Amino acid sequence: MKVASIVSHDIRFPTSRSLDGSDAMNPDPDYSAAYVVLRADDGSEGHGFTFTIGRGNEVCRAAIDALAPLIVGQSLDDLGEFYRRLTHDSQMRWLGPEKGVMHLAAGALVNAAWDWRAKAAGQPLWELLASLSPDEIVDLVDWRYLTDALTPADARGLLSDLSDKKGYRLEQVKALGYPAYTTSAGWLGYSDEKIERLAREALADGFTMLKLKVGADLDDDLRRFALVRKVVGPDIRIAVDANQRWDVPDAITWMSALARYDPWWIEEPTSPDDILGHAVIRQAIDPIRVATGEHIANRVVFKQLLQADAIDFVQLDACRVAGVNENLAILLLAAAYRKPVCPHAGGVGLCEAVRHLSFFDYVAVSGSLADRAVEYVDHLHEHFVDPAVVANGRYLAPSAPGFSTQMRPESLARYTYPEGPAWH
Amino acid sequence: MKVASIVSHDIRFPTSRSLDGSDAMNPDPDYSAAYVVLRADDGSEGHGFTFTIGRGNEVCRAAIDALAPLIVGQSLDDLGEFYRRLTHDSQMRWLGPEKGVMHLAAGALVNAAWDWRAKAAGQPLWELLASLSPDEIVDLVDWRYLTDALTPADARGLLSDLSDKKGYRLEQVKALGYPAYTTSAGWLGYSDEKIERLAREALADGFTMLKLKVGADLDDDLRRFALVRKVVGPDIRIAVDANQRWDVPDAITWMSALARYDPWWIEEPTSPDDILGHAVIRQAIDPIRVATGEHIANRVVFKQLLQADAIDFVQLDACRVAGVNENLAILLLAAAYRKPVCPHAGGVGLCEAVRHLSFFDYVAVSGSLADRAVEYVDHLHEHFVDPAVVANGRYLAPSAPGFSTQMRPESLARYTYPEGPAWH
Repeated sequence: MKVASIVSHDIRFPTSRSLDGSDAMNPDPDYSAAYVVLRADDGSEGHGFTFTIGRGNEVCRAAIDALAPLIVGQSLDDLGEFYRRLTHDSQMRWLGPEKGVMHLAAGALVNAAWDWRAKAAGQPLWELLASLSPDEIVDLVDWRYLTDALTPADARGLLSDLSDKKGYRLEQVKALGYPAYTTSAGWLGYSDEKIERLAREALADGFTMLKLKVGADLDDDLRRFALVRKVVGPDIRIAVDANQRWDVPDAITWMSALARYDPWWIEEPTSPDDILGHAVIRQAIDPIRVATGEHIANRVVFKQLLQADAIDFVQLDACRVAGVNENLAILLLAAAYRKPVCPHAGGVGLCEAVRHLSFFDYVAVSGSLADRAVEYVDHLHEHFVDPAVVANGRYLAPSAPGFSTQMRPESLARYTYPEGPAWH
Repeated sequence: MKVASIVSHDIRFPTSRSLDGSDAMNPDPDYSAAYVVLRADDGSEGHGFTFTIGRGNEVCRAAIDALAPLIVGQSLDDLGEFYRRLTHDSQMRWLGPEKGVMHLAAGALVNAAWDWRAKAAGQPLWELLASLSPDEIVDLVDWRYLTDALTPADARGLLSDLSDKKGYRLEQVKALGYPAYTTSAGWLGYSDEKIERLAREALADGFTMLKLKVGADLDDDLRRFALVRKVVGPDIRIAVDANQRWDVPDAITWMSALARYDPWWIEEPTSPDDILGHAVIRQAIDPIRVATGEHIANRVVFKQLLQADAIDFVQLDACRVAGVNENLAILLLAAAYRKPVCPHAGGVGLCEAVRHLSFFDYVAVSGSLADRAVEYVDHLHEHFVDPAVVANGRYLAPSAPGFSTQMRPESLARYTYPEGPAWH
């Protein structure tokens, strides 16, 4: 089967009107998607997207359109080759390599191809991935720049060691779901009253971990953290997230002040490019854990965060890197370095997509749920054909064929920017 | 004075027809520029660009158009503020941050503003920069994420220490020029005969350093290196450049084999994102030096390359990062860590632009020419109003007002893609 056409869409939701999603670096995001419909020769479709927060979404769309000629007319049989065509074009590579707009666009296309493949197989993506052999998984990864940390042979060994009980874990996670944590309570733009109410609701909904945004004002952060800790008690994990607000020395000072309320992790304390900075921060604020990932440009930066022992949690994102294939590499690296993967989600459709990667991780790569949780934000799910469902603090296993990356046609029409009625 | 308008152009030269610029990762580049004309209220203009190698240049242009509304109508008085407006937009930042297409576009706009400013001042950019006080230079830098390595106070001290003899060095470098090295001989697509002839010509032209592309085939590299070493003798420095071709273990093996011909440096041995990998390679192949920079995404990655002692030479690029302002930060970091800056050039207009930064570096930041040389490639200079001139192996001091980033109108018309006659 070959790719017959690629059609891109600029979809934006006016979320800045309600301050949903506000944090120290992103005061007024309009959650958006550069969205792709990939059509195969026989008319079957795969849908994929990359997530942005508003302005510039049209640049990602332009990048998708620039990459499309590399794959239109090409085979969909080997999605390893499909992915490498998108990231290795000798001229386009100059614009990254493998980072920023071009990589976000590659992610949208790769994800669309996987949605197509899983639909064609009649399986949810995570079950399709879990059915692949160690050799098949290893062949989907681009090993360039990774072999000083992990070789294909190492990865094959790691996957083979877990093959025995794949079936058991698959049934278990299907029955019990996968742990989630919630960020819905903690946006910076919310009032104290709203935060307190939402924290109570999170407890009632069965969450055992939640996350607060910090980094704009230390006194505010101390007050809000104290408030939420009082509401939830000592046993609930409270992560904090600075969204890259600090320099290295600031991060250490600020987190030393917040330490009294027992933060579970500090997320994005500084620049996502600062591997060495994260390592310094982690050492200085021990035992507070360090997490990052939603802005980590590619597998090479994740490799180094692991090599430098700079983080405790790997927060991969379904759309920041080049889609499913590159995330397979990141899952394998995390497993090799024995660091839990706790994916970034929220935004538009990230909860829908990334849960597939964590379900697969548990079944076939890490084999563990210890200290794992997928972020959950209760926004915008209604626009998806196969929305994420969280009950009693756990993601239920997605069961519809595909990658859950398809939006409802009426949402695509309504939120198309700037023509859609939502933007009139 | 305010920005009245920004007009972008997609300019491409069909250089792939002659294999100029071919290397192990870039077999057939079409040297291109996403080009900007910034017009001020009074009709005065500044020209700037970012360099690409062909496909995807239109995505950089789309990014310039996406960023333009942030600066149209804004003041040109404070180019520190101008630059930070382009890199700190809370929504657009998601697409980087500060890397890839958006950062290339920011570089084109920032460079256009500096061309405008230097023309308004009636000075070549390097002399304008050299006339600024330490405080003025420090205020042009975005210090976010740098202060664990270098503080504004450190930078002010460093610049003040050199202030005494600025006038002497300025006159000296104006009279004698700045060392250059040539890459014109060493493209991978050239025959042995052509390389041998070009190496002889480089010697005759007064160059004392040249560079060969390597990394596609070890036997070819050994043969070509031996050939050139024989032509130029033991005293000429021969750098080699792998253009990111290798994994860390490959780089060590390959360079151990090439060591017999005394390479001056290995450039881009592996992924530009792999700070730790460069450090490992450098230790393993000592005393061969390590250089990188043309693909280093931003000042935060340069900071870490210096902190990790991963490189010997800082190869900043006039257009990869966000233009003059971010390059000021990189020059200051390099001086603080006592590493020579040997800029990347070639492409379209990079020689024209980057020489300004090196002349300024000598006068006001490092105060040294030791082991410094700016890359020179003898292509496409005829398209610029104020072309780079190299004589007897040295760049002559640019003297026309501006940043030398302005193309001739007839070249803009001829090479506009895809409408220009060069593409018919």
